[in-house]
Amino acid sequence: MSEYTKLTKEELLKEKELLLKKFDEYKAMGLSLDMSRGKPCKEQLDLSMGMFSSDIDYIDEGIDTRNYGILDGIPSCKKLFAELLGVETKNVIAGPNASLTLMFDYICQCFAHGVLGEEAWRYNDSIKFLCPVPGYDRHFTILDYFDIEMINVPMNENGPDMAQIKEYIKDPNVKGMFCVPKYSNPSGITYSDEVVREIAALKPAAKDFRIIWDNAYFIHDLDDNGDKLLNIFDVLPEYGNDDMVIEVCSTSKITFSGAGISAIVASDANIAQIMGRLNCQTISYDKMNQLRHSRFFGTAEAVKEHMKKHAAILKPKFEIVLKHLENELGGLGVANWGNPKGGYFISLDVMEGCAQRVGELCKEAGVTLTPVGATYPYGKDPKNSNIRIAPSFPPVEELDLAAGILCVSVKLACIEKLLG
Amino acid sequence: MSEYTKLTKEELLKEKELLLKKFDEYKAMGLSLDMSRGKPCKEQLDLSMGMFSSDIDYIDEGIDTRNYGILDGIPSCKKLFAELLGVETKNVIAGPNASLTLMFDYICQCFAHGVLGEEAWRYNDSIKFLCPVPGYDRHFTILDYFDIEMINVPMNENGPDMAQIKEYIKDPNVKGMFCVPKYSNPSGITYSDEVVREIAALKPAAKDFRIIWDNAYFIHDLDDNGDKLLNIFDVLPEYGNDDMVIEVCSTSKITFSGAGISAIVASDANIAQIMGRLNCQTISYDKMNQLRHSRFFGTAEAVKEHMKKHAAILKPKFEIVLKHLENELGGLGVANWGNPKGGYFISLDVMEGCAQRVGELCKEAGVTLTPVGATYPYGKDPKNSNIRIAPSFPPVEELDLAAGILCVSVKLACIEKLLG
Repeated sequence: MSEYTKLTKEELLKEKELLLKKFDEYKAMGLSLDMSRGKPCKEQLDLSMGMFSSDIDYIDEGIDTRNYGILDGIPSCKKLFAELLGVETKNVIAGPNASLTLMFDYICQCFAHGVLGEEAWRYNDSIKFLCPVPGYDRHFTILDYFDIEMINVPMNENGPDMAQIKEYIKDPNVKGMFCVPKYSNPSGITYSDEVVREIAALKPAAKDFRIIWDNAYFIHDLDDNGDKLLNIFDVLPEYGNDDMVIEVCSTSKITFSGAGISAIVASDANIAQIMGRLNCQTISYDKMNQLRHSRFFGTAEAVKEHMKKHAAILKPKFEIVLKHLENELGGLGVANWGNPKGGYFISLDVMEGCAQRVGELCKEAGVTLTPVGATYPYGKDPKNSNIRIAPSFPPVEELDLAAGILCVSVKLACIEKLLG
Repeated sequence: MSEYTKLTKEELLKEKELLLKKFDEYKAMGLSLDMSRGKPCKEQLDLSMGMFSSDIDYIDEGIDTRNYGILDGIPSCKKLFAELLGVETKNVIAGPNASLTLMFDYICQCFAHGVLGEEAWRYNDSIKFLCPVPGYDRHFTILDYFDIEMINVPMNENGPDMAQIKEYIKDPNVKGMFCVPKYSNPSGITYSDEVVREIAALKPAAKDFRIIWDNAYFIHDLDDNGDKLLNIFDVLPEYGNDDMVIEVCSTSKITFSGAGISAIVASDANIAQIMGRLNCQTISYDKMNQLRHSRFFGTAEAVKEHMKKHAAILKPKFEIVLKHLENELGGLGVANWGNPKGGYFISLDVMEGCAQRVGELCKEAGVTLTPVGATYPYGKDPKNSNIRIAPSFPPVEELDLAAGILCVSVKLACIEKLLG
């Protein structure tokens, strides 16, 4: 098949007829398939059940983890995160089960109390944040909750468009940026060393500019040949920007999505301000869960080994989807997609103006996708083009079907568009 | 010994000499005893270790608790809290390990976004809260963090002074009140049915007046003869005040202080607003921990039985302290104290102007008390009189010594004061 744009009207109508036949066959199967969220599957969750198999220990360096106190997390857990992320233990706070909470609470802190002595953001009605797009919907939800205006910054193949960022940060009302620097959600792109350096070197007009470095997939490679991300905390001091970045991560996709642990990494000054708030907000996060995690793994190396088991489950799932995309959409000139080396998503860009229709067709045939538009602030993809595919949860045989339906839907939607 | 105020100067000096001798004996022991925080002791924490002894189940009514989702908590856990608190399941959100977080986050929500459509508190520089005193220092810390002015309301033997409260709430800037309605921290007082009804019937000028009903000790009786608290949610509808109360509780002093679960109870409208925020703040609280708890107990009745084991550990600790107070301070006219039927504290009021000095003397002899003043907003006890005794953590033999030192310190401080 040649590129759709080169086909005549008659050829397109013929192709449409064939596709509709296939689509109806899928529909007749009465399927209910879900590729909407980056949820680990049962087999992945089973990998960490050993955490509960041995006698439960509850003492960490003399601390009874069952009792009150130890606001910044237990020593063994802080050390494990520090080792994994290549930072000092003193710059780590071990957190609750969701890094989302760490991000929400940090933005809330900036909103209510400001950043290190600067005016609280709540006094400024024109606060803006930069959002590399497509991006993670839950980042946008946080910003929207605090009425922070979101500015789209396009993603290039090595990270966000730095030229645009450098322009935007001349505005003192631009107070920050959300990044998923490794295996970006959803594009799967990892920021190049050069981009990380450029980010570390930024000189924003706002002294209280904060980059939320959501390193959600820091260790989530699909094989041994994973992307390497430059540690931004190694570079920040060169530019006197030690305080500019707040990093978060979690074990939601390492152990349990609903019962893992998280961490926040920041400069001494930022950690001190966060601790000041935490001292009002909690007595400690769940230290027994922290200890179960640090005992189950022991070392950063063991976490990396553990991630290979996840990769063995996930890689075939990515492969089956990519095979469908290549075989069925390759060469048609109606779609582009990434081939990520890790993370949880495949990002598919279809012909402009068609993504919404693809979502509708998929739904009609029993496949739930992430709501089209969700990867953009305000749920509005300006090109109506991006589709986020989340292959982790369904079994391979379901993915096989779902990806087939997705490809037929993409082709149908694009032909409809071309036929006008 | 007769009342100190009736002694002559010579008699006081003689008594002081005897006390100093005893005090020096204690000091020479080089003790380090801690009665400062309401922490469960090791034996109490051991009571719940059975939670980990059986095979770990992770499915609750078809929900895999290890995965994302279920923002309001798993069904079995919500039901358990609903049964314990006598409310409907739909009005319960099962929360994180600390109810403090639920309270902080709720006040923060009122501050940033307001209450059910009313103007956010952050736009008003004159927000005030009523604080029954003595009270819980961590409530005051939350209010102080959000620059909310705190107004002392004295506690009577059946609850806070309702006449004063009714006066204060005529001011529309008075936006709420923190209460520990059962076994108040630190007085041990339980609000009478009449007081609960009066609170439920309040008609504050502020439509967004919110009572944080911190039911921390709702089931924490020292024996079978515990206080009964009227369920305020049964009474609120009679006065059209369904939305006025936000109740919280936790298992911090039932299972694990650092790894328990909490709950927030509120009207449909309040729950809906809280869920709207939670949807931005987290993906769920720790559902595996929720399930461990609901499986370990099964029924509300089992929780009550479990609390008898706590009582068996705690009661002798309260008794030894009370014995010292009665034997050594009784009849001297320099101190009053409560005899609580539950909770975690004994509240001791010494002669006005003497509490600070008692704290200093205790410290000198190796006993750490809750910082004097901490039971009042801004850390300022206007009468410099209240001392919070926390007998739960130290072993009985240590309490025996600590209470002895406390009594000598009280007597010395009061004599110093009388001698001028």
